[in-house]
Amino acid sequence: MDQKIIEQIVSQVLASMPALTQDEKADNGIPVGVSNRHIHLSAEHIDILFGSGYSLTKDKDLKQTGEYAAKETVTLVGPKGVMRNVRVLGPVRAFTQIEIARTDGFSLGVVPPLRDSGKIAGSPGIVVVGPKGAVTLTEGVICAARHIHMEEADAQKLEVKDGDRVTVKVHGARGGTFDNVLVRVNPSFRLEFHIDTDEANAAELKNGDMVTLCK
Amino acid sequence: MDQKIIEQIVSQVLASMPALTQDEKADNGIPVGVSNRHIHLSAEHIDILFGSGYSLTKDKDLKQTGEYAAKETVTLVGPKGVMRNVRVLGPVRAFTQIEIARTDGFSLGVVPPLRDSGKIAGSPGIVVVGPKGAVTLTEGVICAARHIHMEEADAQKLEVKDGDRVTVKVHGARGGTFDNVLVRVNPSFRLEFHIDTDEANAAELKNGDMVTLCK
Repeated sequence: MDQKIIEQIVSQVLASMPALTQDEKADNGIPVGVSNRHIHLSAEHIDILFGSGYSLTKDKDLKQTGEYAAKETVTLVGPKGVMRNVRVLGPVRAFTQIEIARTDGFSLGVVPPLRDSGKIAGSPGIVVVGPKGAVTLTEGVICAARHIHMEEADAQKLEVKDGDRVTVKVHGARGGTFDNVLVRVNPSFRLEFHIDTDEANAAELKNGDMVTLCK
Repeated sequence: MDQKIIEQIVSQVLASMPALTQDEKADNGIPVGVSNRHIHLSAEHIDILFGSGYSLTKDKDLKQTGEYAAKETVTLVGPKGVMRNVRVLGPVRAFTQIEIARTDGFSLGVVPPLRDSGKIAGSPGIVVVGPKGAVTLTEGVICAARHIHMEEADAQKLEVKDGDRVTVKVHGARGGTFDNVLVRVNPSFRLEFHIDTDEANAAELKNGDMVTLCK
C-alpha cells in the first residue's frame, strides 16, 4: 500500500480513538477538596455581625494560599429553615457571598443558582445572624460551580488553560464523570478539585481522594 | 486498493470509534425518579409502630406497579440526629429496610453502605419511632445503589439485560455520567432511573428529567 495512504489511515484511526485517559498517566491525579457550606464576609458585614472593628480569628489554613477557616460562625435563616454554625472563611472580601449545596437550599427554602464564585448578581438573599447583629442580604447565596484550582505548572502538565471547562473522571462504586468543570489558574492556587457536599456524597468522594482529567 | 483491505480497515476504524451514543437515538431517553429517604416495613414492625393489625393507607401510587407512598410516616433517631416525617412506602415487605442519602446519614450519625435493594446484611441499625411504639433495628439502613427499572421490551430496545451494570449520561450544566448503574428487568417494572437526593442534587436532576444510556 502507498505509504501516504497508510499514514492518512493511521491518522484517521488515531483521531477516531479516545485519547489516552489520565488514568493511564498515573502521576496526573488531582486531589479533591470538599466545600461544606460557608460564608465569605465583607468588612461592613463583619462589623454588623461581630461588632465594629472586629477582626476574624484564623482557625486553620485552607489549601489555597492565604485562604483560611475562621473560628467564627454565623447562623443562616431562610424562609423554611435555619442553619447554625456556618463557617466563615477568611480573608475579608469585597462583598459577602454564601456558598451552599442544593440540599442546604431545600432546608433553608432558597434556590441558589449554580454560579462561578464571585458571580452573585440576581442570586437570592438570606438573613445572616451573628453574635452582635443581623444582616438581611438581598443577594449573595449561590451553589458554587465545581472547579479546579491550579498554578501554571499544573496547567502545562495537564494541558489546560485558565477558563477551560473540562471533564473529570471519578473512580469507585459511585464513579462516573463531572462535565463543565472550570479550570482556574493563578500563581497563588494549589492543585485541588473543589466540589460541594452534594457532589461529594453522590460520588462517594472525600477530601484528598484523587480524580483524573478526561481530555 | 484491494476491496478486502478496504473492508478490513473500515471495520478496524469502526471498532476503534465510540459507539453511537444514545443521545443520537432520540427515542431512547430514560425518565429520572428521585428517591427521597423512605422506609419499607415488615408486618411485625407495622404492628409495633402503628398498632396491632394496622394496615397502611395508600396516599399515591408510585410509578413501579404495586408500589405506593403511604400516608404514614415515622421518625428516625440516630446517634447524632432525628429525622421526622420519613415516608413509609407500601406494600408490606418481608423485612424492614430504610433507604437514606449519605447526607441524611451525616445528620443522623449513621454511615449506610451503598447497597442494591434487599441487601441489608451488616448494614447499621437505627431507632424507628411511630405513633404507637418504637423499634430498635440492628440492621437495615442502606444507601440505595442507583438502578434502572424496566420491562423486557425496554431491555431489548436498550440492548441490556437484567443484572447489567451500565453508564448513564446526564445533560446540562451539572451533566456527566453515572457508572455502575444496575439494570433491573421485571414484567412489573416501568422504565425509570432511580437515584437518591444527593445524586439528583449533584447532577441537577428532578423527577421526569430524561437521561440516556452510554453503551
